[in-house]
Formats: sequence, C-alpha cells, structure tokens
Amino acid sequence: MNERSFVRAARTVTPVDMAAAQAAAVLHSQLTKPAGSLGRLEKIGVQLAAIAGRCPPPVPEPVTVAVFAADHGVVAEGVTAWPQEVTAQMVANFCAGGAAINVLARHAGAEVIVVDVGVATPIGADTPGLLRRTVRPGTGNIAVEAAMLPGQARTALDVGADIATQAAGRGARMLVTGDMGIGNTTASAAVIAAITGLPAATVTGRGAGADDTVLARKMQVVEWARHRIPAEADPLLILTELGGLEIAALAGFIVGAAASRLPVLVDGVIAGAAAVTAAALVPDVVGYLIGGHRSGEPGATAALAHLGLEPLLDLEMRLGEGSGATLAVPLVQAAAKVLAEMATFDAAGVIGKQPPG
Amino acid sequence: MNERSFVRAARTVTPVDMAAAQAAAVLHSQLTKPAGSLGRLEKIGVQLAAIAGRCPPPVPEPVTVAVFAADHGVVAEGVTAWPQEVTAQMVANFCAGGAAINVLARHAGAEVIVVDVGVATPIGADTPGLLRRTVRPGTGNIAVEAAMLPGQARTALDVGADIATQAAGRGARMLVTGDMGIGNTTASAAVIAAITGLPAATVTGRGAGADDTVLARKMQVVEWARHRIPAEADPLLILTELGGLEIAALAGFIVGAAASRLPVLVDGVIAGAAAVTAAALVPDVVGYLIGGHRSGEPGATAALAHLGLEPLLDLEMRLGEGSGATLAVPLVQAAAKVLAEMATFDAAGVIGKQPPG
Repeated sequence: MNERSFVRAARTVTPVDMAAAQAAAVLHSQLTKPAGSLGRLEKIGVQLAAIAGRCPPPVPEPVTVAVFAADHGVVAEGVTAWPQEVTAQMVANFCAGGAAINVLARHAGAEVIVVDVGVATPIGADTPGLLRRTVRPGTGNIAVEAAMLPGQARTALDVGADIATQAAGRGARMLVTGDMGIGNTTASAAVIAAITGLPAATVTGRGAGADDTVLARKMQVVEWARHRIPAEADPLLILTELGGLEIAALAGFIVGAAASRLPVLVDGVIAGAAAVTAAALVPDVVGYLIGGHRSGEPGATAALAHLGLEPLLDLEMRLGEGSGATLAVPLVQAAAKVLAEMATFDAAGVIGKQPPG
Repeated sequence: MNERSFVRAARTVTPVDMAAAQAAAVLHSQLTKPAGSLGRLEKIGVQLAAIAGRCPPPVPEPVTVAVFAADHGVVAEGVTAWPQEVTAQMVANFCAGGAAINVLARHAGAEVIVVDVGVATPIGADTPGLLRRTVRPGTGNIAVEAAMLPGQARTALDVGADIATQAAGRGARMLVTGDMGIGNTTASAAVIAAITGLPAATVTGRGAGADDTVLARKMQVVEWARHRIPAEADPLLILTELGGLEIAALAGFIVGAAASRLPVLVDGVIAGAAAVTAAALVPDVVGYLIGGHRSGEPGATAALAHLGLEPLLDLEMRLGEGSGATLAVPLVQAAAKVLAEMATFDAAGVIGKQPPG
C-alpha cells in the first residue's frame, strides 16, 4: 500500500505547460515596466504559470514546509562534532516551535510539518504534532555498508510522496523541503557525487561547522562510500546505498509535489541530494523545482547546477531545516502577484519606450 | 521653515548603538542553530539591534515606501528612449495602484507614498493621494548647466526629511526608498562619479534599456557634467549641479530616517546616489542603511561598495520605484523575528556542538 504512493506519484507527473509559460512571457511584456526589468522575478512568474497551467498563475499560498528528520550511521566515522542526540532534540524543538524554521515559516505564513522517518534516539510521547513514520532508526554507516535496504528506500520515498499528496489535499499550493539529521551533509555529498559524477572533494563541505580535520575525514568517507557501488549505479541503488532516510523521503516529497502540480522550493544540500535523485527517477519534476537559497555547501551548488536551477537567495546561510527556501517564499508569491495585479501599458495610459531614432 | 527640516534631522542623527549590537551577537550564539549558520540574516539582526538600541530589536513594521518623482533636463541629450511624459504617467499609475511598486508593497504589507518633487508634465487633479511638493518642474540639463539652484537643493532635502519624519510620526518602523524619473540614471551616475571619484564609464549603465549608442552618449554626458564642477566639490554642490530633485529628496529622506532611528532600505542606483550624498553630508547615516537589491546598474554597485553595503537580493532587477528594496522587506523583518522568537540551547534542552577530540 505505502509502496504504491511513490510509484503512483511518479506516473502522475507531467511536463509543465509551455503554452501557459508563453502566455506569461507575453503578459510580462505588456505590464507597465521596461521589458525584463523585474529580472529573475519574471522568470519565476513564467515558471509558476507553466506549473499551474494558466496565466496569470494563482498566488502559491498556503504553503507547507515539511521537515523530514533522520539519523545517519556515518556519524561513527567522526564526520561531525555534533552528538547524534541533537537530531531528536531538534525535532522536539521543531514541534515546540522554537527553531529557526518555525520562526521563518510563521513569518512567511507557512505551516510546518515535522516527520520522523528515522531518528535513532527515542523521542518522547509529549511531542505535539510529530508525524511518526520511522522507516528504521537511522541508516547504516555508508563508509562500510548500505545506508538501508532497497525496500526501506522505497518506503521512505512513499512516506515523502504521501506527505506531499496529503498537504496538497489539505489545500497547500506550494511545498518547501526541510530536513534535520546530524551527519546528513556527508550522505548528501555522497549521493550528489554519485549522481553528478563529480569527485568527493568537489561536493563535500563543512556542514554545520566542520574544521579542517573533520572536513578531510568527510571527504575520505564520501570517497569510500561512492567506491563501494558501481560507477553506473541506478538512482535507486545510489539512494539505498549512500543516501539517508530523510533524503529518500524528500525525493518522494518532490515527486509528490510535482504529481500535484505544485511548485516546490528546494533548500540547501540535503534537498539538493533529494532533488537530483528525484530528477534521476522522474525527469519531468525539474520543471516544478524552484531554488530557494544557495547553500554554502559545495554539493548544493553542484546539485543546483546539475538541475539547471539558480536559487533566489544567497545569504551565506548553512542551517538546513528548510530555512533558506522558506525565506524565499514571499519572493515566489510576489512573482505571481506581479502577473496578476500590475496594470498594462494600455490600461494605465502609459506610453511605451520609443523606437531609437 | 522648510529649510530647517533637513538641518534639524542632520543634527539629530547619532551613531548606532554598538552595545545593543554586541548583545545581539551574543544572543545569536545562544540560539538553537550552529554559530553563524543564518549568515547575512544574523548580520541584519545585529544591525537592527544597533539601530533600535535594544536587543532583541523590535520587528520593523509597519513599513513606508516613499516614491519621489521628478524629471531631468538631461533627457534633451538623448540619454533615454523613454519620453519624458512617462514620469507623470507612471506617477498616475502609482497613485492608481497599478505599478510594480504597488504590487510589491501590498505584498510586503507596506504603505506607498508618492511625492512629486519635480515632475515636468502637469499631473491631473484626479490623482488620489499624490503629495505635491514640486520644487521646480524638472532639473536643468546637467550636460551644460546646473541641475538646480542651491536653495532648491536644500528645499528638496527638506521635503525628503519631512516625509521621513512624518512617516515615523504615523508609526512607520522602517522606510524604503523609491524613485521615478525618466533620465534619472544619468543624473545618478554623475553624482556617484563625483562623490566616489570613479570614472564616468565605470558608473554609467543602461538604465531602463539603453542600447549601445545611447549608453555611449550617457557616458559622454556624465563625463561632461562632472567636468563642469571642481574635482573637490562639496556634496551639496555636487547635488545642486549634477543631481536630481528626487535624488536630493531621497538624500533628505535617508537623513530623516536615521534621525528617527529607523532602518532605511535602499534600492538601486538612484537610491545609491542619494545614499552616498546623504553619507557625505551626515556620515552617521551609514549605520541605518540596509542594501535591498543589487541593481544591474554599475553605479549602484559602486555606491554600495563606497558605503560598505552588501545588498540582500540580487535578482537582476533594474526597475527602480523601490521595487528591489521592497522585495527585501520580509527578509529584514525575518532577521528581527529570529532574535525575538528562537529558543536558546538551554531553553530547548538541545546540547551544543562538542569540542573536537
């Protein structure tokens, strides 16, 4: 039953609507501003029209941020200075409303959903709102073993697709990727290296503050991990062997969003790993992706480049949780409102630019 | 009477509060996130504390966007393909609520004030909400003559300071610079060249779509203009000879904002010219400035660098009106909310990063 959620979502995804995109581009040329002067905001407006299949596109609100949390066996390799218990503690913090993502989501008028897909430390029963969809309590250590079993990867993909479909059913009109998991920048780097073919050293970064020694260890671990699997491994094998439970769930979430014809704002390097996986599994999802923030993690930049995405923000953030993408929510909504609400040259009685002469 | 507004505001400006800034930096280190992981958002939070003189800083809302409109005699030199009447037509569009700045301000929950400080074309009486503070109907042609008389520059500075003071009095807690004026990127480039000492070719750009021929003409005009005045001209002389009425009003507006201890979000190249002028007249205003958007105009980049500002957004926008800065409003507000609303490690029961070992 669960297994079918992702497969069904994957089959439902269709390419975005290029006729609606064209209509939005034409409308932009008629609005009271120099052609192209709203820059990237115009491109987002065109993309929203393509996603919604109409012009002007509806304003993408309400918004749901889904934070998928899981632990990573690779912490045994000393790839982070943060204790594994912090994953569970931060989940409790998300549910209590005290984390950065809570503050930023409230500010953006967005709902936050917290989903445990594989936190290793038990989380107390007094954790309001937590969705307990644990697939297994943390992954294996990817330096030496598979992250999960193939069936577990499929289950995590299903969880993500389910969460997206349910959010759409409750009325969400844009979804935002969020994540929490001590050690997850290492797993994300491994997935991104395997899918893009880039070297470990190019895609591995400092995560939540690794020093030079830890960074060197992370690069070594990513190198070991990706050499455990064949160079031509398919995306599901890469996810199973190198990924994380939250990465798999986020890949499913992205596919579920596209299946519901909703834009999905992707954040940082964990979301980047999930997005390249989702795009490898279901290529048409790329048209539904909007880059929220350029993470300082080199893997995030590699993933975005692989997908042809240019993020809206570049604020030197490296927190995860969906924080960067959530900050970009008002920009995306503004792009829709420009198309819906601005006057045309004709309607406003404004004469246009004159031909040179 | 009017003349005193700017002088009084200038005398009222005090340096921002570095003790409050320090308190905000300490608070940031106690919140449940890796140190520094909110990047530029943390720096804005620290600046807001410094401006308000308390930590956490109040959320800067409500917000007032003031769009100062004026015409430029330099259009006689063929520096733009847009007819001068467009300034007046766009003012009517602002007052009717159909321009980009109206859409973006509504989205940000901000009020828009439209101030005619020197539009050359008569604007019909049926223009609701327009503040008519015309100093003169457009400037002189700066290629060959002074933009305005010294007393007119002082009057325009007073208008801007008045508007800021009045907005603060009505309860605004952040101000945003807006501008409209066919030809104003040429005047802005001349002011920025004169104040920063950079060559005309470095600070002159395409404005609202100049082609190569027009761009070459603009550069020539800027070069002529700045060589009409002494190399060591003081900022008031630069403003009088090379500026625009909206540039002068914006400089006064910035000083008025700082005098009211309010953050002021600066937009694009026109605001950049006003901000370097304001900072030359009243150096302490710099602490109150937040860069909203990196305009594609090279003069904007030169002005921001001169002020040591790094804008929050870089979306390839080149519209003016205050559009880029207004889009950045939610980011600035988010920076304040992070300090006010996030849990500390202690309060949330989250253990911090462990010492390496």
